[in-house]
Amino acid sequence: MSPKSILITGANRGIGLGLLKQFLKVQDIQILIATCRDPSKAEELNSLKDSRLHILPLNIDCDESISKLYTEVEKIVGEDGLTVLLNNAGILLPYDVEGKKDRRTMLKNIETNAVSTAIITQEFLPLLKKAAEKNGGEGFSINRSAIINISSTAASVEKIDGTFNGPLVAYRMSKSALNSFAKSASIDLAKYHILITSFCPGWVKTDMGGENALFEISDATKTLAGNILTLGDAHHGAFLNSDLTVIPN
Amino acid sequence: MSPKSILITGANRGIGLGLLKQFLKVQDIQILIATCRDPSKAEELNSLKDSRLHILPLNIDCDESISKLYTEVEKIVGEDGLTVLLNNAGILLPYDVEGKKDRRTMLKNIETNAVSTAIITQEFLPLLKKAAEKNGGEGFSINRSAIINISSTAASVEKIDGTFNGPLVAYRMSKSALNSFAKSASIDLAKYHILITSFCPGWVKTDMGGENALFEISDATKTLAGNILTLGDAHHGAFLNSDLTVIPN
Ligand SMILES: NC(=O)c1ccc[n+]([C@@H]2O[C@H](COP(=O)([O-])OP(=O)(O)OC[C@H]3O[C@@H](n4cnc5c(N)ncnc54)[C@H](OP(=O)(O)O)[C@@H]3O)[C@@H](O)[C@H]2O)c1
Ligand SMILES: NC(=O)c1ccc[n+]([C@@H]2O[C@H](COP(=O)([O-])OP(=O)(O)OC[C@H]3O[C@@H](n4cnc5c(N)ncnc54)[C@H](OP(=O)(O)O)[C@@H]3O)[C@@H](O)[C@H]2O)c1
Repeated sequence: MSPKSILITGANRGIGLGLLKQFLKVQDIQILIATCRDPSKAEELNSLKDSRLHILPLNIDCDESISKLYTEVEKIVGEDGLTVLLNNAGILLPYDVEGKKDRRTMLKNIETNAVSTAIITQEFLPLLKKAAEKNGGEGFSINRSAIINISSTAASVEKIDGTFNGPLVAYRMSKSALNSFAKSASIDLAKYHILITSFCPGWVKTDMGGENALFEISDATKTLAGNILTLGDAHHGAFLNSDLTVIPN
Repeated sequence: MSPKSILITGANRGIGLGLLKQFLKVQDIQILIATCRDPSKAEELNSLKDSRLHILPLNIDCDESISKLYTEVEKIVGEDGLTVLLNNAGILLPYDVEGKKDRRTMLKNIETNAVSTAIITQEFLPLLKKAAEKNGGEGFSINRSAIINISSTAASVEKIDGTFNGPLVAYRMSKSALNSFAKSASIDLAKYHILITSFCPGWVKTDMGGENALFEISDATKTLAGNILTLGDAHHGAFLNSDLTVIPN
């Protein structure tokens, strides 16, 4: 069994596109909703021909864009609700403690990665609750209803050791805030049986990860997508590596 | 021995004012700079008559206000630099995962508590470096040069257990982001021998803490101020309770 429907944000490139391709290989996923800021420019995404694939515009920094998406998704998933919201979209704006003070840049990195992800999560709760109720079952399962956040080991305050501090200060703050939101939400939404899990995808060769990263997109997303499809009770509220090992906060 | 100078943000009420009163009792602290948004309305602060006390305006959400403060503080501390920057100012804007989506409120809580604290810290680095150099000595010490952040146990993602989740979601995110900044800064600024320590003051009866809080301001700030004056190598980069026990992140 697999989730009926999965919505992925930032699915036009990088890890989002990689995860989408992996999920497209899983035949019993019935609906895949790939969102990106400008579908007209998403060449590779548009080249993926599959009747289960719906491509929709979404800028997570814009409340109106989030609301419009909700209306479209509701039409697509109908009474089944949305099984999985996969919050992948994110940015890394270099920021250095010893560099220039730049309130806007620091705020923007935190807005996109933490605040916008919180807002889209809140918006989609009715459709996620609907899926949890419709699918029923015991406890938590990726097949019942789930919110999956692509976070980063950079979220871990414990693990800050000076590696890449310079560029990563605002990014780290944003992912720490995101994990805090996810942990609160995992408790507050537990009564609806919506599974919430945060992942670090590893250091991946994307535009963000750069050329020196350790993993190819296809390898990293194969492991991650495979393990996402196994999530259940044990992973609710957790912050995990792709191989499901725990990361301290 | 005690630090030559201490600057406290948000010193017109609550924990900031309480800490100021405690430090005023310590005779060998030579300069106390108490900042608040509107000194003309800070009655209790203005009633504290002490020649070592300087009251200056500061809105930490405003870059211009921070720069103006820097210029004034530079005149006061001169070639000795500033020994201790005590970032206490903060807000708690109620936010509930299941409540209304409100991007601005979530952003504002994170801006004041995390981003503004990061910006004022960056601004004051030259004066803190000056003190560290002038005072010399080995390693880290509150008497050499230090940044003390008043954070909160709410920063700890590990410790989120559902208690007060409803109102505290945005506040928790803000304090997690603040602790991330402090940890990065503790590593990046270690070469200048600037001590950085984050504290939870406990649950204190202030406007923010409310009437049901566990501690009176005078008791809570007596313990906290006393222990702040003992900080050294062992506390650099740490996140602590008032009694110097460690809080997990
Ligand atoms: N690569 C790594 O090593 C690594 C490591 C740890 C965590 N991560 C996380 O993995 C996720 C994906 O990163 P990636 O490496 O695939 O990065 P990427 O190649 O830079 O892709 C980022 C994606 O996010 C989208 N996005 C950014 N801001 C958006 C907004 N406001 N609204 C909608 N979409 C937005 C981008 O859309 P546009 O094309 O329109 O810009 C793009 O699709 C991020 O959350 C990142 O923090 C990556
Ligand atoms: N009380 C508790 O139980 C508790 C527990 C854990 C952590 N804390 C932390 O302790 C610190 C002090 O809190 P408190 O309990 O004393 O709260 P409080 O009584 O509400 O006082 C907050 C102080 O911060 C100032 N402030 C807020 N926004 C500001 C801004 N933009 N610019 C300059 N000053 C600003 C306020 O100034 P105005 O008077 O101008 O508003 C006031 O002086 C906060 O960081 C809080 O998060 C408190």
